Amino acid sequence: MSPTEAHRRFIAARVARLATVDASGRPHLVPVVFAVERQTVYSAVDAKPKATTSLRRLANVRANPAVALLVDHYDDVDWSQLWWVRADGVGRVLDMGDRESQRAIALLAERYPQDRENPPPGPVLAVDVERWSGWSARPVDGVS
Amino acid sequence: MSPTEAHRRFIAARVARLATVDASGRPHLVPVVFAVERQTVYSAVDAKPKATTSLRRLANVRANPAVALLVDHYDDVDWSQLWWVRADGVGRVLDMGDRESQRAIALLAERYPQDRENPPPGPVLAVDVERWSGWSARPVDGVS
Repeated sequence: MSPTEAHRRFIAARVARLATVDASGRPHLVPVVFAVERQTVYSAVDAKPKATTSLRRLANVRANPAVALLVDHYDDVDWSQLWWVRADGVGRVLDMGDRESQRAIALLAERYPQDRENPPPGPVLAVDVERWSGWSARPVDGVS
Repeated sequence: MSPTEAHRRFIAARVARLATVDASGRPHLVPVVFAVERQTVYSAVDAKPKATTSLRRLANVRANPAVALLVDHYDDVDWSQLWWVRADGVGRVLDMGDRESQRAIALLAERYPQDRENPPPGPVLAVDVERWSGWSARPVDGVS
């Protein structure tokens, strides 16, 4: 699948899975809702800054900025419909209240009505994507 | 969510996402179909052993056995339905043809008719789970 097609499918999805890695090399995995602007994927922590369990991803990114995000489509009956796309990149934890963070919160609120009603209280994680890739069981338009 | 409830939801799911970490600390993320026996999650590589892209997860596990698997439920309309469960553990790449590998292939074929028709040609990855955990937007039966 071309990077362009992978990017297209990623931004059309509603949920992704975020993998970060702690200082000891152990992976951490959570689902996230997200918004994309150009080559950056934004997600926000759904808990207050002091809720340490939700902050593991942030501690991980500070220790090791390499992250991956995955979007996939599964069809239990017809495996010819299966596809996935992955965004590999570098994470940054944004300072709460800074301009990019406010912009990300606005983008999330635009995509998700739930975020408009209850803005996420935690910091925003920005992932600058270096590589969009993907796989599809069926041939995809364009270069695969 | 209790480990028992997390385990129950995990084994009832049809697809999970597997996170491994390479020798440089970079995460790798792919969706997998799987079978669980006791505390071990089995998945098989859907490509021939020489297809190097599909083997990245195996090289990663050999370099760093710490892996995570995630199952999640997303509902775009009703976020009170959201939940996820995670299995953190230690990966082992099984030798093709050994008894545990044959058992895993049989378990996968039992769960997925597609695997009966076209058995996965690649090696089996076993993940010995050390921790089942999870989160639910709604209260869950038992200890949360």
